[in-house]
Amino acid sequence: MKYLLHDIRHNPMLWLLFFVPVVFLAEALKPGAYTLLFVLSVLAIVPLAALLSHATESVAAKTGDAVGGLLNATLGNLTELVIALTALRAGQYMLVKASIAGAIVTNTLFMLGASFLLGGLKHHTQEFNKVGARLQAGLLFLATVALLVPSAIAKADSGPAAAFANELSLGLAVLLIVAYGLGLVFSLKTHRELFASAEAGEAGESPWPVAVALATLAGVTVLVALVSEVFVESVQEAAKTFGMTPAFVGFIIVALVGGAAEMASAFSGARKNRLDLSVGIALGSASQIALFVAPVLVLLSYVIGPSPMSLDFWPGAVVMMLIGTLTAALVTTSGRSAWFVGVLTLMVYLTFAMSLYLLPPGLR
Amino acid sequence: MKYLLHDIRHNPMLWLLFFVPVVFLAEALKPGAYTLLFVLSVLAIVPLAALLSHATESVAAKTGDAVGGLLNATLGNLTELVIALTALRAGQYMLVKASIAGAIVTNTLFMLGASFLLGGLKHHTQEFNKVGARLQAGLLFLATVALLVPSAIAKADSGPAAAFANELSLGLAVLLIVAYGLGLVFSLKTHRELFASAEAGEAGESPWPVAVALATLAGVTVLVALVSEVFVESVQEAAKTFGMTPAFVGFIIVALVGGAAEMASAFSGARKNRLDLSVGIALGSASQIALFVAPVLVLLSYVIGPSPMSLDFWPGAVVMMLIGTLTAALVTTSGRSAWFVGVLTLMVYLTFAMSLYLLPPGLR
Amino acid sequence: MKYLLHDIRHNPMLWLLFFVPVVFLAEALKPGAYTLLFVLSVLAIVPLAALLSHATESVAAKTGDAVGGLLNATLGNLTELVIALTALRAGQYMLVKASIAGAIVTNTLFMLGASFLLGGLKHHTQEFNKVGARLQAGLLFLATVALLVPSAIAKADSGPAAAFANELSLGLAVLLIVAYGLGLVFSLKTHRELFASAEAGEAGESPWPVAVALATLAGVTVLVALVSEVFVESVQEAAKTFGMTPAFVGFIIVALVGGAAEMASAFSGARKNRLDLSVGIALGSASQIALFVAPVLVLLSYVIGPSPMSLDFWPGAVVMMLIGTLTAALVTTSGRSAWFVGVLTLMVYLTFAMSLYLLPPGLR
Repeated sequence: MKYLLHDIRHNPMLWLLFFVPVVFLAEALKPGAYTLLFVLSVLAIVPLAALLSHATESVAAKTGDAVGGLLNATLGNLTELVIALTALRAGQYMLVKASIAGAIVTNTLFMLGASFLLGGLKHHTQEFNKVGARLQAGLLFLATVALLVPSAIAKADSGPAAAFANELSLGLAVLLIVAYGLGLVFSLKTHRELFASAEAGEAGESPWPVAVALATLAGVTVLVALVSEVFVESVQEAAKTFGMTPAFVGFIIVALVGGAAEMASAFSGARKNRLDLSVGIALGSASQIALFVAPVLVLLSYVIGPSPMSLDFWPGAVVMMLIGTLTAALVTTSGRSAWFVGVLTLMVYLTFAMSLYLLPPGLR
Repeated sequence: MKYLLHDIRHNPMLWLLFFVPVVFLAEALKPGAYTLLFVLSVLAIVPLAALLSHATESVAAKTGDAVGGLLNATLGNLTELVIALTALRAGQYMLVKASIAGAIVTNTLFMLGASFLLGGLKHHTQEFNKVGARLQAGLLFLATVALLVPSAIAKADSGPAAAFANELSLGLAVLLIVAYGLGLVFSLKTHRELFASAEAGEAGESPWPVAVALATLAGVTVLVALVSEVFVESVQEAAKTFGMTPAFVGFIIVALVGGAAEMASAFSGARKNRLDLSVGIALGSASQIALFVAPVLVLLSYVIGPSPMSLDFWPGAVVMMLIGTLTAALVTTSGRSAWFVGVLTLMVYLTFAMSLYLLPPGLR
Repeated sequence: MKYLLHDIRHNPMLWLLFFVPVVFLAEALKPGAYTLLFVLSVLAIVPLAALLSHATESVAAKTGDAVGGLLNATLGNLTELVIALTALRAGQYMLVKASIAGAIVTNTLFMLGASFLLGGLKHHTQEFNKVGARLQAGLLFLATVALLVPSAIAKADSGPAAAFANELSLGLAVLLIVAYGLGLVFSLKTHRELFASAEAGEAGESPWPVAVALATLAGVTVLVALVSEVFVESVQEAAKTFGMTPAFVGFIIVALVGGAAEMASAFSGARKNRLDLSVGIALGSASQIALFVAPVLVLLSYVIGPSPMSLDFWPGAVVMMLIGTLTAALVTTSGRSAWFVGVLTLMVYLTFAMSLYLLPPGLR
């Protein structure tokens, strides 16, 4: 507990932990105040995500390179996974798919663009390891393409039979998870040296003892799950109040909320002129969503969902994911960055956000 | 006047100025001879564009780097802008959109490809600054993507409400112009050195005194506007005579005519083994169309057009713009060129031209 | 004959020649046993393709660089061409188009990916000449784009008139062949040095005398044509038995069978840490399909086909070809490779294969 208090004192984001009890209180007292519950649950998830991230890193730091890397890689997107699982159990597949697509786009456009902008405002031009960046951008591109195959082929041929989409998604989920496993062997074992810098630097804060970290990991995961429940229940009604489409909520809000902790690390890396770190977090996290979170959700939909979920995204999401990964590949290929590259990358993100916000509900 | 005469003596393209009075005469005498008027107006716009370009550069050379760069960047596509404004006032939105899309494709495929080919016929292989080229290709890609968001998302979701497209285009136009302004700060102020070579070399001819240049700028802009009026009025009927679709006219003819002066500079740079200059003109001009000309036309459509114009392009144009910018990114990424790269780039352009020419009118 | 016997002794793939007489025997005895005939004809084509490849190289080795290169470039995909011609004569245009698309995708994803994987399992990281690879990837991208223009523009505009597609395809075929001819001038004459390494190494086995090679070339081509006839006749019925769609057969089976010989060379190059060779074969062969085989088939459809064949591919094939060439461009841009890059490239190929296998017949 003293570790927690120490952290809270030094990290203003953790002050938001105050909202965790508030959200449960509010739900008990006013179960119908959806807008309030939505805002409170968003405010409560952000610090919990930061705690999860710190706890994961603390365990990872203690257990040595291989197991630690595995933990970091598997639990790095735990917040996104728990939120998506809650939505999955509630049968809100549109929200689940939007949050998968949104997490990829947010990582490749918002996180990368804001890192370039924040870093570029402080440093004239920044260099980063282009060999590593190209490799990661290439992996991300391939992962995204594999994820999009059912949508691309089915949509292109105007209207798939639902059975086909489910069968294909199931097969694909297995393939993606195999590729993810091989990717862990690659990045943690056979070619560890290519990814070294990114992992070493991620632990910005002092690590906790293992017992504290493990207890925090377990406890906070439960809290995230409970808050996510409030979030998923209230989001639909609240979105209506704010005039947001479900696509906008999943794509923008969930992705920003779930990724808040990683963003803090990526931005601080960029300010310290360690763009390798920022690029590694942004591209690595996006790859993990495509190769691990998405297929796990498909497989779990057979167990905990009301019906099987396919990987068949709506066409706008396909376009946005492809553009996001192509943009990431293009802006990282030169190994150099300046603030305006960040501005333009963010602008593409803003145009997506604007389109989703304005999209009439009929078009989804 | 003596400067003008001196230039005319040394630049055969200016001999076409002869057609400027001819086109007005012809319109007064034979207002219904659309095919004749169309041909004459095309012949008259080419030398006027060259004069505009020279006058802009002369003013720019005298006013110092920052203001001069601003002028060059803003007035570099003045001819395209004036033609498009005339079409906008006449409510010919198809022609306006086709000329925006065509200018981007012509700059990235025709101007770049012909520069590579012409340079490559004289020099075995040519090298150019790949860092600058990659940066510019990256900016162009992001600018094009932002421009295409309404089309991509709306079309992908099969049929947008017109209101949505207009709202989104308006918001996007504001975003694009903000990005354009920030881009000027970037290229003229904070990171001037990255763009230095391209600007320095653009003034191939000897500059005029400022007074002459300003007077020419004003006078020639008026002339371009007047000739454009004839052009826009006659183009529809003339196109029918030649068996051309409106898409072909806007995409190919307007873009080639409007960009003639820049092409002359780019090609002469390539022959002199200064491909940096050619690549800079081609990519810079295409970016400017996407970030400045297109949004200005959207905003002005609220003032001078019969109804608001959206940035909703027809699908073929979207595909062609994306392929154009992707091609530009790919062929400039290595920083080396040889004649066959130019041949293939031109071939892609030719296939687009051929498709547009053959496209049955029903498909637009 | 003794050369042939010597080769057979040293190359286990040639033991499959045993199936050549077997397939003719089987067809004479059991003309209705489609599944058997299909399997036998596949087994018979593989060694014939290897012989064709060796004979072409032997002639090429004797006739000097320019003519030899021309031969290699023209006859390198002779097997694919003969199979496609047989399908063309039978009016099976779906099979022809699927085999064109499949050959491009198989070369860029399967051949490249498997080379990276096989090479990477033996060597920690492999380097290859990135200048040459980028040039070839750029050429391939432009060739593929040109090939796809009719599909992209026509499909994007929802349903073309058939006449338009045929007219455009004819014009395009002429353009592509002109580009192919210019490409030969480029790679064999003006810029020979850029492609040198790939050609020099292709002759892995000892060359035959010219007379033997020419006789083999003629004889084996006839045999391939005869076996192809059996293959094309039996493939439809056999596919039904195996539950395969015609798209799957053309895209996957024909492409793998036709490219078996080239794959053997590419893989052996990768194992010997000569990735330049593997990348050259994979990208060069894919370019040749787009620039030479496809347009030749369109032109010949006017002579030997029941009706003109257009280059209008079904949308799924367009997506797959574009992704294949983009992937090839991305994974070769860094000039370095490791086994996991191969895994992910193969995974994209597997997802395509899986989709085509599962695709309900109604969606084609």
